[in-house]
Amino acid sequence: MDEFGLIERIRRRAGARDDVALGIGDDAALLQMPAGQQLVVTADTLNSGVHFPPETPPADIGWKALAVNLSDLAAMGAAPAWCTLSLSLPEASPDWVDAFADGFFQLADQHGIALIGGDTTRGPLSISITAMGHVPAGEALRRDGAQAGDDVWVTGVPGEAGVALALWQQQRLDVSVASADTVLEYLRCRLARPTPRLAAGLALRGLATAAIDVSDGLLADLGHICERSQVAAEVLESALPTSSMADQVGETELFRALRATAGDDYEVCFTAPAALRAQVSESMACVAVPVSRIGYIRAGSGVQLVNGEGTVLATSRLGFDHFSVAGQ
Amino acid sequence: MDEFGLIERIRRRAGARDDVALGIGDDAALLQMPAGQQLVVTADTLNSGVHFPPETPPADIGWKALAVNLSDLAAMGAAPAWCTLSLSLPEASPDWVDAFADGFFQLADQHGIALIGGDTTRGPLSISITAMGHVPAGEALRRDGAQAGDDVWVTGVPGEAGVALALWQQQRLDVSVASADTVLEYLRCRLARPTPRLAAGLALRGLATAAIDVSDGLLADLGHICERSQVAAEVLESALPTSSMADQVGETELFRALRATAGDDYEVCFTAPAALRAQVSESMACVAVPVSRIGYIRAGSGVQLVNGEGTVLATSRLGFDHFSVAGQ
Repeated sequence: MDEFGLIERIRRRAGARDDVALGIGDDAALLQMPAGQQLVVTADTLNSGVHFPPETPPADIGWKALAVNLSDLAAMGAAPAWCTLSLSLPEASPDWVDAFADGFFQLADQHGIALIGGDTTRGPLSISITAMGHVPAGEALRRDGAQAGDDVWVTGVPGEAGVALALWQQQRLDVSVASADTVLEYLRCRLARPTPRLAAGLALRGLATAAIDVSDGLLADLGHICERSQVAAEVLESALPTSSMADQVGETELFRALRATAGDDYEVCFTAPAALRAQVSESMACVAVPVSRIGYIRAGSGVQLVNGEGTVLATSRLGFDHFSVAGQ
Repeated sequence: MDEFGLIERIRRRAGARDDVALGIGDDAALLQMPAGQQLVVTADTLNSGVHFPPETPPADIGWKALAVNLSDLAAMGAAPAWCTLSLSLPEASPDWVDAFADGFFQLADQHGIALIGGDTTRGPLSISITAMGHVPAGEALRRDGAQAGDDVWVTGVPGEAGVALALWQQQRLDVSVASADTVLEYLRCRLARPTPRLAAGLALRGLATAAIDVSDGLLADLGHICERSQVAAEVLESALPTSSMADQVGETELFRALRATAGDDYEVCFTAPAALRAQVSESMACVAVPVSRIGYIRAGSGVQLVNGEGTVLATSRLGFDHFSVAGQ
């Protein structure tokens, strides 16, 4: 099995799209952009042992590597279209590549995104993806549009991936195989197979004033919105989503400790005018995405998590940083 | 120095373009495609110890990582526009990042390409770039258009990067510093700072019937054109460019042994109708790119290198493969 053999194994799985004039197999791909749209581009890398435990099954790695990129497109309100995949592998294993492709294309096909290029190289396991989509000019959900008075919302249940990670670190969860226990398997998938909120992003066009995906931790990522929008945010602890799954594994307290600061959930945190509160709820219900209103934007800077007595429990400085984990 | 600090060091060096509606600093970039053009996308990764010697200066790594991607755009006849950069680093070293950025932006600014996204992660040194450009619809130089009777051409002097690699392996060339010897420094740069032939690619629109960049070796890459075009190619040994630089370091024979099969030169090999021979020469002269007519396309399959007596010296199977180097 050589480099071209590996590429061919991946290439024959790549889905078709009418707007791909030339896909994998030339020096570059040729793509047709729809008129009146802006191109939306994001790139994210996953490294073994840093972004996922080394024993993670290749199918989960394939899913997650694409999911974290699609999550960025979701947070822009973009429709996904194409992606490139650069795969560094320690050895040329067809079985590994096939399993990786299983997870990768399961998610890609779900969202109709076409793999249009990339390469395979020899090296420590690392997956770099650049994902591309489009959005009508001027309608993208950016980080810099939050206004004082806006509500702060978040999809799903941030913190469950953090609980799964802790359970793995305590050797109570085996990330390398599907669990027969449905609760444990749910939590394992929160870590190994995050759900990019693409439908939510599309539905929030024209409603949200700012959006970001939660990869570094809820407070840290909301902090990026505040920094770019030059506003402050208050997050109410009592409004944060609870996790019946964490409750069922007896980790209610751990979940509460993690939910505002743990990364890797890939939910979307967004702001929207208080006047559009009902429309936001309805639009999220339409796409069947659970959503919680967790706070509000005000003048100032920074993010505070406050309890019912108004005591500040945490700030946006406690998120995840790949080079400096002291804060985590 | 944390991840965001590193990103900021790179971000403030990123060049501006009018078609970048939103650059680095959000979940994704927003880009404006010119009307009537196709988007051209390519992705390539460089890993330390595989694609460059570990002691390569970071500025050269930055240059080369971008150059190999721009070379793919050149081989499509595309105008370069934007790129993403995913950088995995063993440690967060601002000095290393600054030096890397020196080489990267030296080349990026030369071609007016804007860095619009990416990430920095902790991991073994690896650089993944996705480069984007555009080309008028239908005018791209693809691999599948070569016709029997076409001439085969190549820019520059393929094989010089291979000589430099051999000199390094023989410890006669130090890749880690600029050499005071101008010939050795020229050869070092053929390996460490390849020249993407973007001007040649643009000038070949409407002239070339097929094109590819020479990264795996001249015969192997011409073989890709033949495979996609369902034709055969004959390359005449006597027509291959000679290297006065290789001559000056006493490696005429080594160069002759390497020039058809060594990779890493990033020249452009292309085919064009024999009737356009004069126009090809003139257009390459206009952009000051040396070019050689090295053979012709005929019916059949495969690539043969033949000497004056018609003896077959090599075939397209002798190129470079990252997982199977026995052929090299």
